[in-house]
Amino acid sequence: MVGDWFSQEDIGAWEQRYRASLINSVTGYKPANLIGTRDRLSVHNLAIMSSVVHLGTSPPLIGLIIRPDSAERHTLRNIREYGVYTINHVTLSSYRAAHQTAARYDDVSEFEAVGLVPEYRDGFGAPFVASSPVKFGLSLVEEIPIQWNGTHFMIGKIETLFIEQGLVSATGDLDLVQADVAALSGLDRYYRTELIDQLPYAKPDSK
Amino acid sequence: MVGDWFSQEDIGAWEQRYRASLINSVTGYKPANLIGTRDRLSVHNLAIMSSVVHLGTSPPLIGLIIRPDSAERHTLRNIREYGVYTINHVTLSSYRAAHQTAARYDDVSEFEAVGLVPEYRDGFGAPFVASSPVKFGLSLVEEIPIQWNGTHFMIGKIETLFIEQGLVSATGDLDLVQADVAALSGLDRYYRTELIDQLPYAKPDSK
Repeated sequence: MVGDWFSQEDIGAWEQRYRASLINSVTGYKPANLIGTRDRLSVHNLAIMSSVVHLGTSPPLIGLIIRPDSAERHTLRNIREYGVYTINHVTLSSYRAAHQTAARYDDVSEFEAVGLVPEYRDGFGAPFVASSPVKFGLSLVEEIPIQWNGTHFMIGKIETLFIEQGLVSATGDLDLVQADVAALSGLDRYYRTELIDQLPYAKPDSK
Repeated sequence: MVGDWFSQEDIGAWEQRYRASLINSVTGYKPANLIGTRDRLSVHNLAIMSSVVHLGTSPPLIGLIIRPDSAERHTLRNIREYGVYTINHVTLSSYRAAHQTAARYDDVSEFEAVGLVPEYRDGFGAPFVASSPVKFGLSLVEEIPIQWNGTHFMIGKIETLFIEQGLVSATGDLDLVQADVAALSGLDRYYRTELIDQLPYAKPDSK
C-alpha cells in the first residue's frame, strides 16, 4: 500500500493545529455527545464531547475523557461538585447547535446560547437535552487523573436512560440511523451513516 | 418526545444478551479497530475492538479499554509482556474478516484464521494489518485497572503512524470516507458514512 510512515519525531514537528486535527482523527469515527451538568447557581452547562466509551454492561458503566482546557472545565467542576451528569446524543438536526457549545461562554448557559432546550427528569440533578432521542443520566463512580497530560477519565454508572419510541429491536439493537444520530471525526466533521451489515456472534467455525 | 425512561432496576432486569446489545449501543457510533500484538512464540494476535479513545495530541496518547473476557485476554497479556501494540482501521472491504477475529482461536493466529495479512515495520515489535489504510504502533505508557468490573484502561503513545497516500488535507483532516473506513455500533453493526459538514472552530459570536 502506498503511503507514508511518520515517526514520533515527525509528528512532534507538525504545525500545532495540523497535528491536533490529524491526531484527533486517527482513532476513526467517534460518538457525538452533549454532556449536561448544573452548577451551584443552577446554571445548566452543556458541552460537546467525542470521548465517551463503553466500559461495561453489568453494572452499566460509561467512561468519559475530559480535557483540561477551558471549555470542558465547567463540566468537570460540576461533575465533581454534584456527582451527576447526562450524556445526550447529537443528531443531524442539532449538530450545529451542539458544535457551538464548544465556544467559551462565561456568563450564560450554553443551552440558551445555542438554542437547545434543557429537560429535567424528576429527582435527577443534571439537565438532559430535550430533543435528544437517546440520553442517559449518570452518577460519578470514580475520577481517574491521567498524569501524562492532565486529562481526567470519569467513570459513571447509568442511573436513568431515555430512548425514543420505536428505536429498539426485540434483540436489543438500537437504531441510530432512524434516531438521526450523527457520527463525528476529528474535531469538526459530522457524518450521516448507512447500516451496511449486522454480523452474527463470531465463532471459530463460522468463517 | 415520546419514549421510555428506564431506571437502573429496569436495566438490571433485562435479559442478558438484550442488555449487552443495548448498553453497548447507547454511547453512539464507535471506531472499528483491529489491535495487533505478538506473543512469546511469535504468534501474531489480532482482535477487533471498538473502545479506542483519543487522549491527547502532545504527546500523541491513545486510550484503549480491554475487557476481561477470553478473546481480548491474549491481547492484554501480549501488551503487558512486550509493551507494544498496533491499532489498525477496519474498512468496508475487511469488516467481515475483522469481526471474525472475535472468535476464540486458541492454536492459530487470527491473521491466518480470518485471512488478513500481517505486516512488520522495521524495529517495531507488533504486527500491523497490511491492508489497513490508517494504522499506528503504540508503546504502553500505563495500564490502569478498572476496579468496578475488571476491565483495563491501557494508555499508549503513538510511536509510528501510517497513512495511505492522498488521505490528509493541507489542514490535517483525515479523509475516512475515501479511506473506506467503517463505523461500528453496538457489538455487530457496521456502517458506511457520508460527510455532511465540517464546522469552524466555535466562538461565542460565531452562532
